[in-house]
Amino acid sequence: MPVCDNAATVVSGFNNVPPPVRGVVRDLRIRWALEEIGRDYRMELFDAMTPRSDEYREWQPFAQVPAFDDGEIRMFESGAILLYLGEQDPRLLPIASATRWQAITWLFAGMNSVEPHVLQINAIDIFHVGEEWAAQARPGAVKLAEKKLAVVEKALADRDWLAGPFTIADILMVTVLRCLDHTDMIAAFPALAAYKARAEARPAFRRALTEQLEAYSAPAGE
Amino acid sequence: MPVCDNAATVVSGFNNVPPPVRGVVRDLRIRWALEEIGRDYRMELFDAMTPRSDEYREWQPFAQVPAFDDGEIRMFESGAILLYLGEQDPRLLPIASATRWQAITWLFAGMNSVEPHVLQINAIDIFHVGEEWAAQARPGAVKLAEKKLAVVEKALADRDWLAGPFTIADILMVTVLRCLDHTDMIAAFPALAAYKARAEARPAFRRALTEQLEAYSAPAGE
Repeated sequence: MPVCDNAATVVSGFNNVPPPVRGVVRDLRIRWALEEIGRDYRMELFDAMTPRSDEYREWQPFAQVPAFDDGEIRMFESGAILLYLGEQDPRLLPIASATRWQAITWLFAGMNSVEPHVLQINAIDIFHVGEEWAAQARPGAVKLAEKKLAVVEKALADRDWLAGPFTIADILMVTVLRCLDHTDMIAAFPALAAYKARAEARPAFRRALTEQLEAYSAPAGE
Repeated sequence: MPVCDNAATVVSGFNNVPPPVRGVVRDLRIRWALEEIGRDYRMELFDAMTPRSDEYREWQPFAQVPAFDDGEIRMFESGAILLYLGEQDPRLLPIASATRWQAITWLFAGMNSVEPHVLQINAIDIFHVGEEWAAQARPGAVKLAEKKLAVVEKALADRDWLAGPFTIADILMVTVLRCLDHTDMIAAFPALAAYKARAEARPAFRRALTEQLEAYSAPAGE
């Protein structure tokens, strides 16, 4: 098991989160990337329902997870950490320039052109459920998100992964798509649904998800 | 003037956008970066109010701007393009590892932890103005955006720029902050307001903004 008590690579995550967000918290992205390259790592777990300490905010100023520390670099933002790991291993980010930049382009597209619209639906359905404005805003938010999903669907028509080979862009995009698992939106896009299933069948993903979900049953502090 | 008819570097932008978004469309980020390093470039301008062609969607599948082509790499997503340019010039992204990854961390923080919350306010104030849900959603959206701005304010307490020296992270963050110019939100954060003013006073920024605004009075296709 790559999660290892004395590993040099440390990632922050939660040991307790509300049920609707289990399996989508963003430390999953980093766990998955590390599992893909078989690198040992150690999780530093916090209770999501308790405010983070000032010390943690020195590491992750937005007080979110994941934050990352490998003894060389201390950083935060899952997209930045994926890029950092990608630069260390061509199984996550190819060295060839055209493929590399296509992967990085899609990494940013996932973070900035797709995720905000997906998270808007999540916010409406989970965090603002029952509020009158949320119900009114939902149809427009769904329509906008579907426009973005249609672009990714089209991009996947002629390839298995966004940049050709599997890369950090796929880790990002698939973990974004998973935030719609409480809806039937993905099913309307066959290439996207197949892509998501293909990614979720990867052994590294399965291991990462299992570890993340198991952490939620651990006593605080472990 | 670095905008040059036969330049090898091509960036897409608009020659016509609605008044509320003038000065904030994202090609400004790439214009600004190119002005900082004095590289010649050519703009390929489209009418924002006319649907983009299928040919353009081959270049930028989300049909937005900017897209980028330097004869070597064809890509889209302003964050990815900033990173690409940063890797070519240490005035945009230092080579030293700790500073480099701090800049990249803040680049992603700007795109993913700050921008979505700022654009939510923009969407409420500009695109959904007059809709009942927008008025109801606004106080919560402002509160959330202010929480994110407070983090950036704190990060800027002891430095002029997010990663120490001026980098692509600042180009990103400042162009995000500018989307709140129709509000008085930034004024409540003195370090943030000073940071934004410091960035907007840079000659490269002034040139980029002037060029972008001038393009909106150009006849279509130029």
